[in-house]
Order: sequence, then structure tokens, then C-alpha cells
Amino acid sequence: MFPKNTWYVACTPDEIDEKPLGRKICGESIVFYRGAQGQVAALDDFCPHRGAPLSLGTVLEGKLVCGYHGLEMGCDGKTIAMPGQRVRGFPAIRSYPVVERHGFIWVWTGDAALADDSKIKHLEWHENPEWAYGGGLFHIACDYRLMIDNLMDLTHETYVHSTSIGQKEIDEAPCKTTVEGEQVITSRFMENITPPPFWKMALRGNNLADDVPVDRWQICRFTPPSNVMIEVGVAHAGKGGYDADPAHKAYSVVVDFITPETETSIHYFWGMARKFNPKDKALTASIREGQGKIFSEDLAMLELQQRNLLAHPERSLLMLNIDAGGVQSRKILDRLIAAETPRESPAP
Amino acid sequence: MFPKNTWYVACTPDEIDEKPLGRKICGESIVFYRGAQGQVAALDDFCPHRGAPLSLGTVLEGKLVCGYHGLEMGCDGKTIAMPGQRVRGFPAIRSYPVVERHGFIWVWTGDAALADDSKIKHLEWHENPEWAYGGGLFHIACDYRLMIDNLMDLTHETYVHSTSIGQKEIDEAPCKTTVEGEQVITSRFMENITPPPFWKMALRGNNLADDVPVDRWQICRFTPPSNVMIEVGVAHAGKGGYDADPAHKAYSVVVDFITPETETSIHYFWGMARKFNPKDKALTASIREGQGKIFSEDLAMLELQQRNLLAHPERSLLMLNIDAGGVQSRKILDRLIAAETPRESPAP
Amino acid sequence: MFPKNTWYVACTPDEIDEKPLGRKICGESIVFYRGAQGQVAALDDFCPHRGAPLSLGTVLEGKLVCGYHGLEMGCDGKTIAMPGQRVRGFPAIRSYPVVERHGFIWVWTGDAALADDSKIKHLEWHENPEWAYGGGLFHIACDYRLMIDNLMDLTHETYVHSTSIGQKEIDEAPCKTTVEGEQVITSRFMENITPPPFWKMALRGNNLADDVPVDRWQICRFTPPSNVMIEVGVAHAGKGGYDADPAHKAYSVVVDFITPETETSIHYFWGMARKFNPKDKALTASIREGQGKIFSEDLAMLELQQRNLLAHPERSLLMLNIDAGGVQSRKILDRLIAAETPRESPAP
Repeated sequence: MFPKNTWYVACTPDEIDEKPLGRKICGESIVFYRGAQGQVAALDDFCPHRGAPLSLGTVLEGKLVCGYHGLEMGCDGKTIAMPGQRVRGFPAIRSYPVVERHGFIWVWTGDAALADDSKIKHLEWHENPEWAYGGGLFHIACDYRLMIDNLMDLTHETYVHSTSIGQKEIDEAPCKTTVEGEQVITSRFMENITPPPFWKMALRGNNLADDVPVDRWQICRFTPPSNVMIEVGVAHAGKGGYDADPAHKAYSVVVDFITPETETSIHYFWGMARKFNPKDKALTASIREGQGKIFSEDLAMLELQQRNLLAHPERSLLMLNIDAGGVQSRKILDRLIAAETPRESPAP
Repeated sequence: MFPKNTWYVACTPDEIDEKPLGRKICGESIVFYRGAQGQVAALDDFCPHRGAPLSLGTVLEGKLVCGYHGLEMGCDGKTIAMPGQRVRGFPAIRSYPVVERHGFIWVWTGDAALADDSKIKHLEWHENPEWAYGGGLFHIACDYRLMIDNLMDLTHETYVHSTSIGQKEIDEAPCKTTVEGEQVITSRFMENITPPPFWKMALRGNNLADDVPVDRWQICRFTPPSNVMIEVGVAHAGKGGYDADPAHKAYSVVVDFITPETETSIHYFWGMARKFNPKDKALTASIREGQGKIFSEDLAMLELQQRNLLAHPERSLLMLNIDAGGVQSRKILDRLIAAETPRESPAP
Repeated sequence: MFPKNTWYVACTPDEIDEKPLGRKICGESIVFYRGAQGQVAALDDFCPHRGAPLSLGTVLEGKLVCGYHGLEMGCDGKTIAMPGQRVRGFPAIRSYPVVERHGFIWVWTGDAALADDSKIKHLEWHENPEWAYGGGLFHIACDYRLMIDNLMDLTHETYVHSTSIGQKEIDEAPCKTTVEGEQVITSRFMENITPPPFWKMALRGNNLADDVPVDRWQICRFTPPSNVMIEVGVAHAGKGGYDADPAHKAYSVVVDFITPETETSIHYFWGMARKFNPKDKALTASIREGQGKIFSEDLAMLELQQRNLLAHPERSLLMLNIDAGGVQSRKILDRLIAAETPRESPAP
């Protein structure tokens, strides 16, 4: 159950620079590649000739050439040519609206007539040199909503990530959840605490002392279909916390694009954009490595949680106040999914 | 199809000394751990909060702390605490009667009201210094009853274990099967034969000549739900065989606790208790190694037998006199399973 | 959907020289071994005693001895003996007509009464010293008909095998398909072209210049149930092409026996028989290595094509003129399968 009339992150540009990429998104097998002008194209990954995956083929002057018998496919899903054949009668295959923007390839999996690229999220850090970004991609065998729950309730950091970003104060500081239109915001502020190891490293990365008390914040923002951005950071205690001058803090945004592969698996695009010391590539690499380790801890937990839930579909879970972010996010998703589902007309 | 109102071996104590253990038994996912006084506890491996496996958590002062969001679970299945939450309304999860005794952790998978720990088998060798014990654990993809069949018909040793304990005389010596209440006994005695390699090693382990004829015995005892103990040994020929003075024989008991994981898989706890030279740890290790190799030969055979049977559920097997031990054991199991199954009331 | 009243290649003789071989063919698990006179036998791979696979056993003086409890099975599927048992009442298991001929073991999977070994294909190169043969066996997860399609349309060489036997001229030369009784023939002739790497190697193997233009031919012959022989070769240009004197050409036959394992998997026996320089064993080895690499490229493509087709059973494929060989072959198969299927009698 996922919205389809929406943009999902499909891949990163480097994944299609050398050759076509086959990836299943929302249950549909899609091939992504670059056309003649370098623009991205997305097609059903199924050659109309004999059903071979087009993603096994090659791109030749912007045409996708099937790797089995050489059928040449255009970016619109219409066959352009095939050795020794007249191709006019060949059935067109489905093409998907697809856009390259802000460092990602975005695909629209629903009704193409409704695709509106102005709805693609603006990601400031990709253009603005005051920011640096590093990230990665995990495949995880869980419902995409379990990952949303995970990211909207950061009390799990204390347990799942106890050696890096977890600390007891997260549990103790109450969080607050609000809904603003289609956005859900869960925030938590902690004052005068000891920074955990990951944040000590980030402080040093911004040339700040790491052995003094800090104020720490976490502001999780869900927007549909499955994006969670988390403003995170620490400032030297008493300097204004979240609002402190950049010289006294390490401020970042955790970036999460969660793309359903099937009902119980996801492509998880994770990363961190930071607004301090952006030119320090070694720092970018070291944050990326730390974050990769942290998210691999989530991976293990979520896959086993998913197995448990599949084994007991009849069991209902608790909805505590810490779960409000996930609960509200699911309500928005339920509304979107219902709006896409054709209603039966009432009996006369 | 297995009895549930009974004790099964769940694990060995060392498996829960460091951290919780998740194990599926009779189709139920259970977490085993040690409570505040070191006593063993067994609970449904499913956190009531969000369904995470509790076995991924940690034990803190005898409380099982969920590794996802820190819910603290008591040994009785009632939530004790959770950071920032009032837990009175949390639903209790199932706890299982569980006992640590004789070197094993035993779990009762059925109606807790019927659990009676006086029914746990007494294993003398665990307390008595005249005995030594070594063993191991295999996971095998077969119905638990195939392993019972295997252990109650030792003619297979001649073929499956031809290089260690097998010998033609096993086939040639008739066996005798009797039923005593809920116990099935199949016994075989061979006189004046050459000991096979494993028993030569055992004779040397008891400082006895290994190049002389021996009398050999095998007395298999099944007791429900799935325990097979096999008295095995050799004595120098003419010294009284099974009844020979300990100075002339090597006498052991093969210990088999077969715990169903699912209908077609088992946790197989195997071992050997011996009543000679008990302090010789090198001998214990070398017997354990030999036995592990032998049982891994069974593993391969049983898994492929199971696959064959699943492919042909309509085929019936032969019941020869060598199969009497397995046949009688299954009859007892069928009675126990039927007794647990609620009968439909007759039509009025 | 495959014909069953027919001969399939089951294995090569060396596969049963040392011990029994268990192999699933047309959905049936069969054990192959050599009887007392060295003749091959084929039986249901299921011991009538306890269902163990007989292929785990050993052959003793031509009797197949079950590796679990020593039941001795005869080549006709009747139990000969079992330690300590009278075997007269044991049910016979199914035996399959099986023949060793021309370097292969052939099995008849249908009604044994219809088995006629005169219908086994004659393979001249196995007896005639003017020929040399080398080959191998792949397991591929695809419908056997996808492999027939593959071999009857060699335009795929240009794309799948672009570095070895592919070249653009294959696409450009029209092919011709004819049906002669139960044989389908698709042929293609190319004149005055540059030989691709594999054929340069073959020319050198016949002590011919590899840097001159050649004429090249491909004559694919399908015969049911699933054999494709392809006459392939190159001759120095202008020397008569296919009909050139052996001194001017490298002439071979690609040999393909495709044995269904299940509806979506095959045992693929591939090889090449050549009629030049037959005593050069290094050449045989080098052709075999090249061919193995080539067919492993097909393997990858066919398995992914199969997955795509299974995901979209509702989609119909195109039937172009290059597909005529596969289309005609499938028509013959459909007729054979229909002829084996009992027709329902008309309603009275």
C-alpha cells in the first residue's frame, strides 16, 4: 500500500552514467538510462520483442539497444528500429515521467497525466556551496512505513545506536508532534548534555571543543510519500541551541528518501547535508562512514521486526506518544492512498 | 504434529549466559534469558510496543530491555517500565514455563497450567562424577519423527556410518522391540565381533586392548515427546557383554533430544554420556568430534529423505521389523497428540 | 509442457561411472547407475522402504544398495534383498527405459511400452575418427523452449556474444526457415566478411590464415523434443563457402540437447563436433573453453528473460521473421504434447 501518483527517488545520477539501470519501484520493473541529450529516461524493463530485460542492453547514441536481439527503443517507449524489421506495428511499452534534479533521479509511478515536476522537493544543499552532502543506498526487506516510524521516533537511537548517537537524555526529553498540512513534525530539544561520539566527531569537524556540554536538537519532518528530513545538531551549551550562531554549533540535516520496491522491501537513500566546514572532503567521508554504520544497525532491526509482523498479522501494536510522528504520517498516507483508489458507485 | 503439553529441550545454559537467545520451538518464536536471580525466563519473542524481536535486546538487572525503544519486560510477560510512558495498560505477552536442570533449559510449549517440572527426565550423568558428557546442537530440515525413526533403527549405521560405527553384524543380529508404558525399547546384542573404528578408539580411551574380539550392544529407549537414549558399548568378548565388569568394557549412553522447530525442521541436541575414564577431557573432546561427524552424516540423509517425502505425500512407506521401534514410538505420539486435540461433540 | 513419450539426454557416461547419479528430468526424480554388466539403469529415486533417495547409495555387483538401510534394488525396480527381510511383498518402483549411445545416456520419460530406441538420434561424430567432440553441461533456470528460441535465432550472437562470435553481418543477412516433417531448419549465409574472434581461432586451428575475408554459414536444425544442431563454419572467401573443400574451411556442428528439469529449468548439454584437425586435443580444449564462455552469456540472459515472463504471464511476445525457427519448433511441440493428452469424450 503506497501512493503511486507521486515522485519517488529512483537512483542517483552516477548509477546511470555508464550503463542502463534496472530497478523495481512500487512493484514495477523499470529501466533507467540517459537519452541522446543526456536526459534521463525511464521505461518498462521488458523488451516488446521477447521479454528480455532492457536493462541488460546498451545505450547507443541515446537509443536503448536490447542486449538480446538488438531492438532499438526510444525514450518514449516506441521502438525506433530493429535489424531487418519494419517496426511500425510494434506495441509501445510504458514510459514513466522522470526528472533529474538536486542530485537524484525522480520517477512518477502513477498516472503520467498527473505528473507535475514542480512538486519535486527542493533540496537546497545540492546547489548552495555553503552545504556539503554525502550519502548512500541500502536495500532493506521491510515495509516502507516501518522506516518512516523509525525515523519519526528517535528514542530508538538510545538502544539501536548506543555507541554513536544514542544517549539516555533522548528518552528523557519529551517530544512534540504537530501536523501542518501534509507535513508531520516531531521535535525534541535537550539542554546541557554530553555529546555522544558521533557529535563529538562533528564538533571537531567544525573546529569546536568536544569536551564541553552542548544543547542538542532533533526536528523530524515527514512529507509524503516517504521523505523524512531531520534537522540535527549540537551547539556549545548556552550559546542559543538550535538558534546559535554557526560558529558555535554543528548543524546538519539527515536526508531520507524511502522508495518502496515491493510491499515489504525498500530502496533506502540516506545521507547527511551539513552547513559547516563544507569544503572538508575528509569530514564528508568520515560522516558518511559513521552514518552508514548507524543505518546498517537500523537495517538489521527493521528486517527482523518485519519478519515478526508478517508472522503475526493479527496482532495490533501500541501507539504511544513517541509514536505520534509515525501515526500521523501513516494517516496522511492512508488519505493519499484512499484518494487514488476508485470508489465503487453506490447501488441504485 | 507434535505434542505441546510437554517439556522440550530449548537450549543449553551457555547459550543464554551472555545475551538473550531467540529460538523457534514448535512453531513459536521464543526469547530465552536469565532474570534477576539468574533464573531462566521464556517469553514470546515479540515486543508489545512495535513487534520487534525482544531477543535483539539486552538484559539489565534481570529485566529484558527491548533493543528498539527500551521497553523493559518482566519475566512474567508484563511490561515493567518504558522511558516516558505509563505502562499499566500495556498488554501482557505470553510467558512459557521454563526450567534449568541437568545441563539443559527445558520449555513447556502447551497449556502452562499443566506444566509439572517433576516430569522432566532425570539425567544422572550431569550430577554424578562417575560420568562424563559431551554434546552439540544441529539444525536439521526434517520432521522430528524421521529422526526418531533413525535412532530407533540402528541398522542404518552399517550404511550411513560405515567408516566409524557401522558393521555388517548389526544387520545380521536380530533386534527386539518392546513397549513398556510410554517407553519403547529396541535392543540388539552382537557377540564376538571386531569393534569398528569408533569403538576401537573408545576401548583405547578406557585403556583396553582394541585388537581383540568384543561383545557389542545397542539398547534404544524412546520416551515422548522426542527423547531417545541409547545404551551403547563394547566389552572384551566373553567377559559378560553388557553386564561385564566396568574394567572390561566401554559403556556409554547416546543422548538425543529432538526439539521440533517447525513441522519439517528440528533443533537436534546430541551427545554422549560415558561411564569410563570420566576425567579424561581429551577423550571427551575426541568422542564429541567423532560423534559430530557421525551425526552430520545423518543430517544429510534425513534432509534429502524429507525432501523426497514432501514431493510424494501420497506414497506409503514400508514398516519392517527393524522399523518397529519407530512405528511404536509414533503410535505413542499419535495418542498424545489426539489427547490434546479437542474432540467435536457428537451431532444431537 | 513437454513431450514425455520421447528420449531425452539424461547425462554423460562419466557421470555414472563412479557412483549413482540423482537427476530430476521432466519433473521426475530419477537415479541413474550401471548394472552388473555395466549397462545403464534408471529408477525412481525413492527407496520403497523409507523414501530415502537411492542416489545416495552405492552400487555393489550391479545392485543399487540404498545408503540408508541397505535395501538392494534391481535394475527392474524390484527389490532383490534386504538384510534380515523377506522382500517378496515389497512394492516395485518405477524403472525407466534407458540407453547408452553416442556418448550420452538417454532416458524415456513417458509410457515405457512405447519406448523405441531406434528413434534415438544418430550422432556420427562419436564413432567416426574424422570428427572431434567437446562439450559441457549447464543448469539454467528457464523454460526449455526459451533455449530452443535462442538457438533457432542466431541474431542474438551480435548482441549477447559480441566479443566472440557476434558480428553485424548476422543481422543484415536474411535467414530462411523451412519445415521438413518434424524438422525445422533456419539457415543464413554471409559472404566475404571478416571472421569474428572465435572463428579466427578456429581457422588457425585448421592451419588456415585468419586475416582474410571468409564466407560464413549457420544452419540450425531443430528436431523434437528439444535438440538443436547447428552447422556452423567459415571458408576462405570465394572457395565455395559451405561447399568448399575441407582444406579451405573450418566446419563444425554446435550440438545442443536441452532436457527439461521442471517447467522452468533445464539441463543444457552443449558441445561442438568439428570435422577438421580432429586429433588436436589442445584445439578441442580451447574450443570447449570458448564455447563454455559463450553459453554462459546465454545463461544469464535466459534466466532474466524467464523471470520477466513469469512476472507478466499476460503479455504476448512478438513473432518476427527471425523468430520463425522458434515459432515453428513450438508448433511441432504443441502437436506432440496434444497427441499425448487424453481427449475427453464428447458428451452423449
